[in-house]
Amino acid sequence: MKVKIVQNILSLNDEVALANQLLFQQKGILVINIMASPGAGKTTFILNTLKRLPAQLKSAVIEGDIASSIDADKIKKEARVEAFQINTGGGCHLDANMISSACRHLVLEQVDLLFIENVGNLVCPAAFKLGEGMRLVIASVAEGDDKPIKYPQIFASADIVVISKTDLLPYINFNLASFKRVISGYNPKVVFFEVEATNGGGFDAWIEYLVERTLQIRSK
Amino acid sequence: MKVKIVQNILSLNDEVALANQLLFQQKGILVINIMASPGAGKTTFILNTLKRLPAQLKSAVIEGDIASSIDADKIKKEARVEAFQINTGGGCHLDANMISSACRHLVLEQVDLLFIENVGNLVCPAAFKLGEGMRLVIASVAEGDDKPIKYPQIFASADIVVISKTDLLPYINFNLASFKRVISGYNPKVVFFEVEATNGGGFDAWIEYLVERTLQIRSK
Repeated sequence: MKVKIVQNILSLNDEVALANQLLFQQKGILVINIMASPGAGKTTFILNTLKRLPAQLKSAVIEGDIASSIDADKIKKEARVEAFQINTGGGCHLDANMISSACRHLVLEQVDLLFIENVGNLVCPAAFKLGEGMRLVIASVAEGDDKPIKYPQIFASADIVVISKTDLLPYINFNLASFKRVISGYNPKVVFFEVEATNGGGFDAWIEYLVERTLQIRSK
Repeated sequence: MKVKIVQNILSLNDEVALANQLLFQQKGILVINIMASPGAGKTTFILNTLKRLPAQLKSAVIEGDIASSIDADKIKKEARVEAFQINTGGGCHLDANMISSACRHLVLEQVDLLFIENVGNLVCPAAFKLGEGMRLVIASVAEGDDKPIKYPQIFASADIVVISKTDLLPYINFNLASFKRVISGYNPKVVFFEVEATNGGGFDAWIEYLVERTLQIRSK
């Protein structure tokens, strides 16, 4: 069997990502691609954010997982927000086509903010644009402060880095200054936020920033 | 440009993995493929194991990372054991060819136990056999107890699951019984060990098990 090679699977993805991006711009939606290791706290971060957003901003969530719909179910139940689950069936990242398909199940006219929770993985999601307006990486302090050295691409391409589970800092070795310095070395424009795991501490600064960015985009 | 499709990249990997496996059997080496999320504590687990092994067992380590050689440097310095670093340059998992190449840099005749630290990722490493005799997955309690539901393949294919950072249990929500139940549902033969993050607690049972397995293989 002979076929033409698809020269660059990433450039195909980029084309679809660009179409998504134009659609989101046209609808005035801020789309956030949320990437992290498994268990860094992505779903909890989204839930804590949704609960604190002012009521006039309407959100939706796309959940990406290899298997199960427990995250989308949790979002719908706890935050009463429209949530669509993508199961990648073994795939290690979301891609632009999956987002394009998922968006057909959402009423985008009623959405100001779209959260996309990527598959838990610090490697592959970094290479696949989805059409997002903001790339957000969450790193739990329990993962150690050397993650930006070992997984440079994902941190270098982030707009926002959220340091999560900071309430565990007293019980572990984690050098916050060194963690931030390595990331800022790749990417001087990155904005950091720090949040706690359980009681929701640290969210005020993030919510203020997010509301401002969302209103800017909606008003364009 | 036209080419023959490689029908199944995984079956090619399996062929090389089988050759590796036969080589390791012939040399009487127990090879452990260590897989986990970023920051679950793979390197610390290897270091704590190396420090506790009886002197008559000779170990070597292959470190897989996307970038940097900090793990191999750490192993060489702290455990004084032969360590070879593979940088995947963006690749999200090790494959059998990488192991075959790395082994040319090790004197296998002098090795009883070969630890392979895979790239931090709960997805892609699950699909690529390396020729190992033991598949070991580490999960930190800080990642949450739902990881086996979201990343079934890697837990279903594990021989050993190590639950790490158990000294953080008092500060987080983690249902140990439910975590184990889901994994045993996939895979009733899996053996569990629990270890602490910092002071090395919990290693005695693991070391006893590992020494016994290594001696069995060496004596064949």
